[in-house]
Amino acid sequence: MVRAYILIQTEVGRAAEVAERIRGIEGVTEAHDVTGPYDVIVQAEADDVDALGTLVVARIQRLEGIARTLTCPIVNI
Amino acid sequence: MVRAYILIQTEVGRAAEVAERIRGIEGVTEAHDVTGPYDVIVQAEADDVDALGTLVVARIQRLEGIARTLTCPIVNI
Amino acid sequence: MVRAYILIQTEVGRAAEVAERIRGIEGVTEAHDVTGPYDVIVQAEADDVDALGTLVVARIQRLEGIARTLTCPIVNI
Amino acid sequence: MVRAYILIQTEVGRAAEVAERIRGIEGVTEAHDVTGPYDVIVQAEADDVDALGTLVVARIQRLEGIARTLTCPIVNI
Amino acid sequence: MVRAYILIQTEVGRAAEVAERIRGIEGVTEAHDVTGPYDVIVQAEADDVDALGTLVVARIQRLEGIARTLTCPIVNI
Amino acid sequence: MVRAYILIQTEVGRAAEVAERIRGIEGVTEAHDVTGPYDVIVQAEADDVDALGTLVVARIQRLEGIARTLTCPIVNI
Amino acid sequence: MVRAYILIQTEVGRAAEVAERIRGIEGVTEAHDVTGPYDVIVQAEADDVDALGTLVVARIQRLEGIARTLTCPIVNI
Amino acid sequence: MVRAYILIQTEVGRAAEVAERIRGIEGVTEAHDVTGPYDVIVQAEADDVDALGTLVVARIQRLEGIARTLTCPIVNI
Repeated sequence: MVRAYILIQTEVGRAAEVAERIRGIEGVTEAHDVTGPYDVIVQAEADDVDALGTLVVARIQRLEGIARTLTCPIVNI
Repeated sequence: MVRAYILIQTEVGRAAEVAERIRGIEGVTEAHDVTGPYDVIVQAEADDVDALGTLVVARIQRLEGIARTLTCPIVNI
Repeated sequence: MVRAYILIQTEVGRAAEVAERIRGIEGVTEAHDVTGPYDVIVQAEADDVDALGTLVVARIQRLEGIARTLTCPIVNI
Repeated sequence: MVRAYILIQTEVGRAAEVAERIRGIEGVTEAHDVTGPYDVIVQAEADDVDALGTLVVARIQRLEGIARTLTCPIVNI
Repeated sequence: MVRAYILIQTEVGRAAEVAERIRGIEGVTEAHDVTGPYDVIVQAEADDVDALGTLVVARIQRLEGIARTLTCPIVNI
Repeated sequence: MVRAYILIQTEVGRAAEVAERIRGIEGVTEAHDVTGPYDVIVQAEADDVDALGTLVVARIQRLEGIARTLTCPIVNI
Repeated sequence: MVRAYILIQTEVGRAAEVAERIRGIEGVTEAHDVTGPYDVIVQAEADDVDALGTLVVARIQRLEGIARTLTCPIVNI
Repeated sequence: MVRAYILIQTEVGRAAEVAERIRGIEGVTEAHDVTGPYDVIVQAEADDVDALGTLVVARIQRLEGIARTLTCPIVNI
């Protein structure tokens, strides 16, 4: 199992709408509106790095209103 | 009361227009055109962090011509 | 209560050590090593924005090995 | 007269100390601790762009604890 | 007289076209296509900072194909 | 011969499609989907720096779905 | 097996030295000096994401002269 | 002949000193103090990309007071 934080920049004015819909995606465990250089921060999990990549590109990035996503996989060192 | 600086990138060529209209929004106390990586810098205030978030997302980001906003809440340490 | 994500860049080679010691700070609820432009991502809470600022500057930033911190307060819009 | 916002990143843990001492510099009209990618945001004024450059390099940057400064001159378009 | 470097990001594929047309704007003294995080670097001059701001917002940013501009005024310290 | 890494940000959701089509361009030797601040990383080669610039602007940036490219020429020091 | 590009900023003047020594680390398959916002770009592989994190933090970041590393895991979507 | 702009961040307070000494390096044709995210912008030329890399790493980066350099080679498309 790979877990990750996904830092999201949305199109202007759409942060609340994106945060709400993103919570409905399987694999997303938490999603919050934030201030700062990012608009929404998500916590997600997937079976492995490839599945994580697919979750981001094929499902999260398909939501309307998303401009950029930055995936930060959690590593246990 | 929470006060903040909001650093704004506008769509190309729209800095002057955005700075002017943003001054009309309740909660915005100052707005200036600047050079550098940002186009307009605003000073704003709201009752608390959530109200500040709403001011940014629900009113400032609704103005035409805004590309990115970066909210920097003032903290008294 | 104000909650926030704090994105941390550490001095090279010190991510694991920082993540471990940061978990011991009161107000920090979670801390993970990550890959990407940040080395550690923390979840924290404080009474208000000023208390959050003090938690970051007066306690988290005092840990050895921290280079930059970026605080992203959670807003409920 | 040229006015500017100066966005400052300080060495970790030194934001409060820098904000306090910077208020004592002639030409600085306001200085605040903030959260986000910057630690202190200053408002300053000088006779012209060269004088502004000198204020930044020869006085503000001489304060202990400053890591980076980003000067954003205000322009009246 | 104020001189400045203006670092320009263009829409994808339009660097050459932007560099060529920008050379025709009064106040622009040089313009080059470059690789790296910027696509075109311009050298320009104006009577003062406000005139420089107007040159950037009212003429350079009006050219088709420009995505972001970053103005770096030259200072004689 | 000049070789380079080209770091590419794509429009949201189009990383896989861009990586696949970019492999078909003459001069591109490898292309991978990645996570982090970039979506696709390409390895390419050209006769000299100008030819590299033309490869990037006139062919790679012409592909649909590309938002930003950052060319990092390899240097033998 | 997880493969990744690692984008490295070195201390000034140490790019060539870092690129040479990094090639000696087990798991590093290629390393090049580059121009642009990064100084060295490495290709590496490890058994999984955690092993990749350990390779970066426990071995690559231990080399003298490294200032920042940015790990971009390759994903097969 | 390859020409390039080199965008330099200096250690705080050392911009003027760096700009002056950098003008003495063979291959540097112009150097200016600037405001904005960079402190000094240099114009330089070398026989080819490798020679440009050597000029940057082996001579410019050896000057005291330099923190980061970003080389943007000029391309004729």
